[in-house]
Amino acid sequence: MCAMKAHKAPNSARRNEQSRQAILTATRELIAEVGYAKVTIEAIASRAGVGKQTIYRWWPSKGFVVLESFVALIETEEGAVELPDTGDIEADLKLVMRETMEEFATPAFEAPIRALNTEIINDPALAEAYNEKLAAPTDEVMRARLRSARHAGQLSPDADLDLMAEMLYGPLYQRWLLRSGPLTPEFADGLVEAVLRAFGPRA
Amino acid sequence: MCAMKAHKAPNSARRNEQSRQAILTATRELIAEVGYAKVTIEAIASRAGVGKQTIYRWWPSKGFVVLESFVALIETEEGAVELPDTGDIEADLKLVMRETMEEFATPAFEAPIRALNTEIINDPALAEAYNEKLAAPTDEVMRARLRSARHAGQLSPDADLDLMAEMLYGPLYQRWLLRSGPLTPEFADGLVEAVLRAFGPRA
Repeated sequence: MCAMKAHKAPNSARRNEQSRQAILTATRELIAEVGYAKVTIEAIASRAGVGKQTIYRWWPSKGFVVLESFVALIETEEGAVELPDTGDIEADLKLVMRETMEEFATPAFEAPIRALNTEIINDPALAEAYNEKLAAPTDEVMRARLRSARHAGQLSPDADLDLMAEMLYGPLYQRWLLRSGPLTPEFADGLVEAVLRAFGPRA
Repeated sequence: MCAMKAHKAPNSARRNEQSRQAILTATRELIAEVGYAKVTIEAIASRAGVGKQTIYRWWPSKGFVVLESFVALIETEEGAVELPDTGDIEADLKLVMRETMEEFATPAFEAPIRALNTEIINDPALAEAYNEKLAAPTDEVMRARLRSARHAGQLSPDADLDLMAEMLYGPLYQRWLLRSGPLTPEFADGLVEAVLRAFGPRA
């Protein structure tokens, strides 16, 4: 009995992990194929070969499954979770902001993230999960690069790195979400230059 | 015949304007009473005493009626469309940003604007109307105050006032929409101080 249990647990864990990955992959595929709005829990379950109840046991709603499917993507692309550090904070930030803007302008990325944002706005629990699982790791990567720049004397010793990150991403997010202006390299560069004037070493 | 027409036109215009105001008032009242999501065109028409077709003749969807109902509110509060100008740009911006944050934290304001944002994100035509009718006038009021500060030598002569406005409002908008941090007076002040370091006169 004891041996059986010991034997069974790993198999069960492995099966769970396989089901989890199948669900997350199915979610991303379906979003790409039919668009976020038309993706249903039924369709995800059917494609992943699991029961609907399996999905509902692990996630409270579609928004949470979608969030997790993006988090899983970032976790597998481990190379992507560090910012370039050439020693030149201005060049590095301009590169990162230009790349981020290009990514936001890519339809395959844009559509699901826009849809996810729609749900986040009206669901505080989903917003909390988003901030914890997607935004916080991204912000931490940015802060690590900013700490390195501060250490190198390229930022003021008392620079508020949290505020700095928000001032880089906030205007980009607003422009993208409200389509209030184009996401151009000039916008990226202007934003980086202004933020560096605000937080650079005092003359 | 001619006289009748001349007589009829003003009456018709007046009736139209009365219907329009009744619709916009009914929209705001219903949002306050039942919440944005539950407001229907039927309910608005019924409360305003007009036919559904009248509403659909003037606006393509609920989002546009709601947007117009907010625009109308701003247009009647004429005193609110100018920023304070005490001659001290830092003090004035801090006051404005603190007040804006308080407004965003007020449930009666927050709920409908949050719901409206949800629709704007997925509707480029509504986003365009929002940017033109609500955001552009607000931005212009901000830019007018910034121009006055630049003229007074409190900003650098080449300060990019559009970017400056985006750097003030973007981080606030992001925090509010994603609930990623509290909207505190300290946040308002830190944001204003950083933006003024970026765009203030060069030493």
